Order: sequence, then C-alpha cells, then structure tokens
Amino acid sequence: MATVKNRRILLARRPTAEPNESDFTFSEVELEEPQAGQMLLRTLWLSLDPYMRGRMKAEKSYAPHVELGDVMVGGTVSEVVASKIESFVPGDFVEGRTGWQEYALSDGTGLSKVDPTLAPISTALGVLGMPGRTAYFGLLSIGQPKPGETVVVSAAAGAVGAIVGQLAKIKGCQVIGIAGAPEKCDYVVNELGFDNCISHYQSNLAGALEKACPKGIDIYFENVGGKVFEAVLPLMNDFARIPLCGLIAHYNDSRLPDGPNQIPLLMRTILRRRLTVRGFISSDFAEQQASFFNDMSRWVREQQVKYREDIVDGLENTPGAFQKLFRGENFGKLLVRVGSPGSR
Amino acid sequence: MATVKNRRILLARRPTAEPNESDFTFSEVELEEPQAGQMLLRTLWLSLDPYMRGRMKAEKSYAPHVELGDVMVGGTVSEVVASKIESFVPGDFVEGRTGWQEYALSDGTGLSKVDPTLAPISTALGVLGMPGRTAYFGLLSIGQPKPGETVVVSAAAGAVGAIVGQLAKIKGCQVIGIAGAPEKCDYVVNELGFDNCISHYQSNLAGALEKACPKGIDIYFENVGGKVFEAVLPLMNDFARIPLCGLIAHYNDSRLPDGPNQIPLLMRTILRRRLTVRGFISSDFAEQQASFFNDMSRWVREQQVKYREDIVDGLENTPGAFQKLFRGENFGKLLVRVGSPGSR
Repeated sequence: MATVKNRRILLARRPTAEPNESDFTFSEVELEEPQAGQMLLRTLWLSLDPYMRGRMKAEKSYAPHVELGDVMVGGTVSEVVASKIESFVPGDFVEGRTGWQEYALSDGTGLSKVDPTLAPISTALGVLGMPGRTAYFGLLSIGQPKPGETVVVSAAAGAVGAIVGQLAKIKGCQVIGIAGAPEKCDYVVNELGFDNCISHYQSNLAGALEKACPKGIDIYFENVGGKVFEAVLPLMNDFARIPLCGLIAHYNDSRLPDGPNQIPLLMRTILRRRLTVRGFISSDFAEQQASFFNDMSRWVREQQVKYREDIVDGLENTPGAFQKLFRGENFGKLLVRVGSPGSR
Repeated sequence: MATVKNRRILLARRPTAEPNESDFTFSEVELEEPQAGQMLLRTLWLSLDPYMRGRMKAEKSYAPHVELGDVMVGGTVSEVVASKIESFVPGDFVEGRTGWQEYALSDGTGLSKVDPTLAPISTALGVLGMPGRTAYFGLLSIGQPKPGETVVVSAAAGAVGAIVGQLAKIKGCQVIGIAGAPEKCDYVVNELGFDNCISHYQSNLAGALEKACPKGIDIYFENVGGKVFEAVLPLMNDFARIPLCGLIAHYNDSRLPDGPNQIPLLMRTILRRRLTVRGFISSDFAEQQASFFNDMSRWVREQQVKYREDIVDGLENTPGAFQKLFRGENFGKLLVRVGSPGSR
C-alpha cells in the first residue's frame, strides 16, 4: 500500500475571544502505511463539541491543551482502511479521538468498535457517545430525578440538553427547556416532549421562567452559565441539585464580567437552599458505561429518546462549523462529515 | 406558685450591618404559672451562634425570621422549675430553643432532656449539640474524608471548626485550620492536634495556604466565605468536596462586594475540578441523630474530641457578646450563663 495524503487542521494560535478561521491552519502530510501493531483509519465523522474551546487555551484543565502546531483534538468515527492489528480488519468502524484530520495511524489505544447494525455509526459521537453519557450520568447520577420534580435544562436543543430533557421525562419529571431560537423551543416541546421551553432571547427571562416553574426547580442541568444561571438561581428549591456540565456562555470570555462580585449571593443561596452544585465530565463515570449503553440504546430503539444531527460536509468547513456552537447556530449534535464509508 | 418576672431581649430593629446594642430592647414581663400540659423553664445557658444574624433579616431563609418586638431566638439549656407535664419534673434539664430570656413556658414541643451525668449540661449547646452535629454531618456525610486526604477548615477555633478538624484527624486526614488570632492557631495545633493552622490576618494568605497544602485540598469545610474562600479555591483537587456550613464574613454585608463578578471563575473551577459544593444545616440530618450522639459522646469521653467554651455571664450581656462572633473575638463555643442550677 502506498502513502496517503492526510489533510489536517492545526491550531495556529490561541484565540482570545471567539475562535475564527485564522486561528487554524490546514496542512497536508503523507502518512506511511501502518507498521506491525498499527492500523490506518479514515475519518468519516468528526464531532464538534464546546469542550474543544478549552483545549485551545494554555491554562490548566482536566485534560491537556492542544499545543500550537498540533492537530486539533476531536472525537471521530473512522473506518479501518488497513490493519496490522489482529482484532481490527478493514471495513471495521471505530470511535476514537483522532482529531481534525482525514486519516490517522493508530495502535488501537482508546478506540472502541462501533456496530453499524445497532444504530447509525454517527450516534457513537452523539446520543450513544460522549454527549449521551454526559446527559445520562449528569442527570441520573448527580441530578437524581424523582417523579414529579421540576427539571430545567439549558441549551435544551443541544447535543446534551436534548437528551437530558428526554431522560427527565422518562423519569416522570416536569421538564422545562431553555433555548435560543423559537424553532428550537418548538422542537424540544413538540418533537422531544418537553413540557415547556423558554427562549433566553426574551427580555424577561426570569419572569418567564418563574411562570413556567410554579413549584420551583429541583434540578437545573447547567450547560451555559451567564444570565441563564442568574435567572434560574432564585427559583431553586430546598435540596435542589445543579449538575454542572458546561458554561458555554463564558468559554470565549477574555475577562470576568463587571461587578458587583456575586459569589456571596450564590454561596448564600447554596447554603440557605441546601443546594448541591457538582461539576463533572462523562469520563468520571467510566466504570458505569455498561448501564449507560444498555439503557440508552434501548431508549433510542424504542424512540423514547430521539436525536437530531446538524451535519456539515467536508473537513475544510470545520473551523466555520465550530463557531456555530458559540453563536447558538447549531441545531442538534454538530458533526462534520469528513468522508463516506467505503469510498476513497 | 406566684408569677415570675421574666427578663427578655427583643429584636427592636433589623440591623443593616454589624448588630449593636441599640438593635435590641430589654423588657420584663410577668409569667403566669404553668397550666395543665405546660411547664416553666428557667434558662441556664444560652447559645450564641452566627445563624442568629440571619434571623434578624426580613428576607426568606430556611427558618422564619424574628419579628420586630419578638424575643430573639436561641438555643438554650434550662432547668424545669415547675411542671404540669407528667414526663418532666422540677430539676430536669432540657435543651430547646427558648430564646434570649430568663424564663419560658413550654408544652415540651421540641425539647430534649439533657443527662447531667454524661457531660456538663452546656455541651448540649456545643460539642454534643447543634455545633457538634453540624461538624459531624458536614464533614462525614458531605465531606466523606478518606485517610491521607487534606482537609482545610476555616473558623478553626470556633464551635464548629474545632470539632471538624478533630474529626478529620480521627479519620486519618492531614488537617489545616484557618483562624485569626495567633493564640487560636496555637490552640488548634497544640491542644486539638491539627497539623497546621494559618492566620487569615497575614498578608499572603494564599501563599501560606499553598505551602501548607503541598498535595492540594480534598475537603474545604466552609464557615466564612470572603477572602478565605478565594485563597482556598485555586488549591482544590479534582473531586474535592466543599461542605458549605456558614459564611460569617458576609452576614453583616449590606451590599455585594465590588467587581468583577467572579461567579464564572468559581463555576469554571467547580467544572474543571469536578468539585461538589453542598450547603447544609444540621437539622437536614435529623434522621441520623443516634449515630452522632453515640460517636461524639464516646469521642468526648475518650478525649479524642476536646472543646472549649467562651462564657459570658448574665443575660444583660448577650447583645455585646453576640458581636464578638463577627469580630472573631470569641474563642471557643460562645455561651451566655443566664442562671445557675438550683438557684433562683
């Protein structure tokens, strides 16, 4: 087998606010054929997720940041093109973290096979993958929903939020979404079965939310931060839980918002209401993966959990697509279709 | 039996900053003798605790506020003077919430008998009472200390903090206290067995704390808020826990501190470090009282848990004594000796 040309997207500089195309460079390199113990993967699907913004920063976080000049990290579903690993054969589909590029050499570390007969392979990056796990463990293990409780979820039409709301409905809760565009609110209510959805674009978010939650809020699944959090906080009931999954409103901040410093207000509310605020990422629950996959694949099969994908074609469109996340322009799980199965 | 003159301290106005004597008025009323189903209690010990500051505010909290003109609330140990309740006889000691006054009529609701042979009766307001329960459940149920972990506790010489640190030592943790005066730091290290203690008066609190916690912080037992919290936060380890017990640095605030608004920084830390922040009060754990009393009374008996009382004599000195809490001037559990057993 000859070498392949591998197009890649590298982090060229660290964005200080919203990332734009000039923060990335395209590069093409030749990949040698796999050596013993290696295989060659061709990227089919690349997942775009808010956490990637954090990896572009030099500061310390739960995972290493991307070095300048390195391929941007990202979850992918790939097809095995050539393999010198016994347990993988050409035509296999694998989920891994091979990044913003068309090909990758791998020794199999960190890869999982994807069974295309169970569900479309792209779901390994969505409802049956990291976003699904995030929703599942965040809501069920941290939120601990009880029938009749009121659950509010922000970024309700997003990859995680949409699943959170549907799981909360399965658990018998009253579910209120918060989203941006009216068509997203329509979608989560009419397609996904949320009880209500509030647009954060409206002028009186706090008032609308209070009206939508006459019994207060027992679980707030936090994806965004900012003004949505401020509107939610006064409505939290005693012993309410806040699974803290994301803060997308702040990822592009270059400085803290103006004062006053509201930390004492937040802490006083946590104390008086005896709230639990807990940050998490899906891999914190790695030991409980089996229960996730069993439950979620059944719910998807039975259409108790629906999902929507927002698909952008072509690796070259990745940087532009990534910006959609921070503008609320994606509608469903954001994916880049980098290649098609079986084609070269 | 004739009527008794009952001296009481009433809330006269709602303080907007540090409470002072003019926020209270003294009043004397005559108490009738107890009717059927009632008993007359004479206050021996009155507990002064930071939570009382919250009851002076009109705003909503976990317990009703004190109305203007009402007797200030407070935990007490009293002696039964006369009883028309079968299960209580004169000479019994009871712990209850009869407030800032010398006598009270009671139907027994909410009272517990105190056994004077187990420990000094004043401990029913301290190590064997609400502060002890607060330390016990906050550290053990929320903090979940594991041997070798680093525990930091603020207000370390206070009624709760002193117990938290000793329990953490029993659980095999490295324990660092934060207190004000040098003699308090000496006390918690030399008398109570903390591993170290940092004064929050020093100019480089963050640096001193970092040096004292080379392996980071696994549990921060929060009693104070403010600059201490700011110094602790960057040192929290992954999966660390913050039992949120009190915020005494803020109770007298009349407005929020100047900006910037640091909530995004706090939330980002909770997310990245996957922290758990949980507010609580001791009564949230009412169903587990038996385990508390068994454990704590044994530890006190075996001198594994020591306690210190800061005693002020005379009901008339209560308002002045209360101010000590907010100035860090109490040294140990703050109590007012309102009366002596058996005397009238």
